[in-house]
Amino acid sequence: MDLEKFIRDIPDFPKPGIIFKDITPLLAEPEAFIYSLKIMENDLKKYNVHKILAIESRGFIFGAALAAWNKIGFVPVRKPGKLPFTTIRESYELEYGKNILEMHHDAIKPGEKVAIVDDLLATGGTALAVIKMAKKLGAEVSCLLFLIELDFLKGREKISSYPVHTYIHFKE
Amino acid sequence: MDLEKFIRDIPDFPKPGIIFKDITPLLAEPEAFIYSLKIMENDLKKYNVHKILAIESRGFIFGAALAAWNKIGFVPVRKPGKLPFTTIRESYELEYGKNILEMHHDAIKPGEKVAIVDDLLATGGTALAVIKMAKKLGAEVSCLLFLIELDFLKGREKISSYPVHTYIHFKE
Repeated sequence: MDLEKFIRDIPDFPKPGIIFKDITPLLAEPEAFIYSLKIMENDLKKYNVHKILAIESRGFIFGAALAAWNKIGFVPVRKPGKLPFTTIRESYELEYGKNILEMHHDAIKPGEKVAIVDDLLATGGTALAVIKMAKKLGAEVSCLLFLIELDFLKGREKISSYPVHTYIHFKE
Repeated sequence: MDLEKFIRDIPDFPKPGIIFKDITPLLAEPEAFIYSLKIMENDLKKYNVHKILAIESRGFIFGAALAAWNKIGFVPVRKPGKLPFTTIRESYELEYGKNILEMHHDAIKPGEKVAIVDDLLATGGTALAVIKMAKKLGAEVSCLLFLIELDFLKGREKISSYPVHTYIHFKE
């Protein structure tokens, strides 16, 4: 299935010069959404992870469906101030700006294997922040899954010590 | 399954006097997460909806898994400035404050049947705002599904013209 035709380019969002990849047409089309999940699941199954760490907010969409399908625990990684219990946090550079992510300090048991899930790999800054938090909590990061990769931002280089699976590539 | 034991009370979050219902222990436990989805799905199946409207961010978790399981389109309802394409918006009163929600203007085709999904029904303000947006776009709101209901906030009264399904009740 050609998933790329379900992704809409939005010029100058969220800032001038950025072409945003809008996945809402893909999510609205069940065949395309399910196909996306199936190809991600195909890789996820190789690692026998205990937890999926899903990154707010679009990562929740893919992470939750994959967790439920595969009977894996779901862990939300959220923007600051959103998680109610004791958290750990990590700051990171975005494609456009700087940000902080948080996880509950008891979200992972030491030694658990985790998969990190998001919709899109851009500069890799977000992913690297989540890797750092997972390791702080004693987890083993088994793999990272992103539906889309913006190849030209070279985010993969930042997380090259880990298996990274992506499915839709934008070269420029 | 007693789902309530997977929900953690967090006093004074996000504001003094509020007891926040933390669902992250439920999400981390696959049996509990899947059981939650199954009981919601059991009601969802009665309505044959075309789209699930899931409310950012925790609504994405339940909405995405339900959409994927049942081959239904997924539509994100988001906080302002998050959706990249042309949006419609609605403001609403929260249990603690005021907020705005947005949807893409092309997210629903006129005449489509929709289910609104979120983790928790509090005052009903959020749900009512989503109902208003769905109707603006010509949708028929078939039902609303919330895993948790805070009965004492009487949110159900605000949306009493629609079938509302909830599964975990807090009386006070």
